[in-house]
Amino acid sequence: MAAHEDLPAPAGEDAHDELLSLRQSIDNIDAALIHLLAERFKCTQQVGRLKARHGLPAADPARELLQIQRLRGLAEDARLDPAFAEKFLNFIIAEVIHHHVQIAGQDSSAGGSAASTPAP
Amino acid sequence: MAAHEDLPAPAGEDAHDELLSLRQSIDNIDAALIHLLAERFKCTQQVGRLKARHGLPAADPARELLQIQRLRGLAEDARLDPAFAEKFLNFIIAEVIHHHVQIAGQDSSAGGSAASTPAP
Repeated sequence: MAAHEDLPAPAGEDAHDELLSLRQSIDNIDAALIHLLAERFKCTQQVGRLKARHGLPAADPARELLQIQRLRGLAEDARLDPAFAEKFLNFIIAEVIHHHVQIAGQDSSAGGSAASTPAP
Repeated sequence: MAAHEDLPAPAGEDAHDELLSLRQSIDNIDAALIHLLAERFKCTQQVGRLKARHGLPAADPARELLQIQRLRGLAEDARLDPAFAEKFLNFIIAEVIHHHVQIAGQDSSAGGSAASTPAP
């Protein structure tokens, strides 16, 4: 299902067509974003299970700092606001940590080694 | 710059290698996400300018509802939490509306027609 039915009618048919075309592009990009995010969470779920197995903490501030610096640089190159890129990464990381804590909880309630030997 | 230096050392070299490999995938996906987001904001900036020119309101609740329904469906197909997909879209839309309000402000301070004939 496309998400551009029932457009508000702007002044003029050209403007309406332009809005429709832009919204189709946005919808295509959103579909790509959703699929990439699904793939990213598959990776972070694997990281979560790995961390739980080895008793590593869910959060890793040193790694996060490097990710933020890198994404800010990529955002600048792509002419995206670096502050937004950082906010975006924090938004994703908050969800990832939430997953990792869940995984660690499942692991320890199943008799796993979660949190037995946390890394620095 | 890759963001996977200074890994914490998990128990065993295999786990370390697995973590490194997963983080490389995450970094690749993040680069793709940043570039797609940059492209998405290029589209929404154009929408913002179009709306400002025609006095359309920055927010469009009917369109947003359709986008949320569509993305939740795509998320389910991709095995991504639909609630997260909705939260993600709301996060992006908040930034877009912020941009649109800025564009409308610039337009009206430059003598444009912003907010003269808001659509329903």
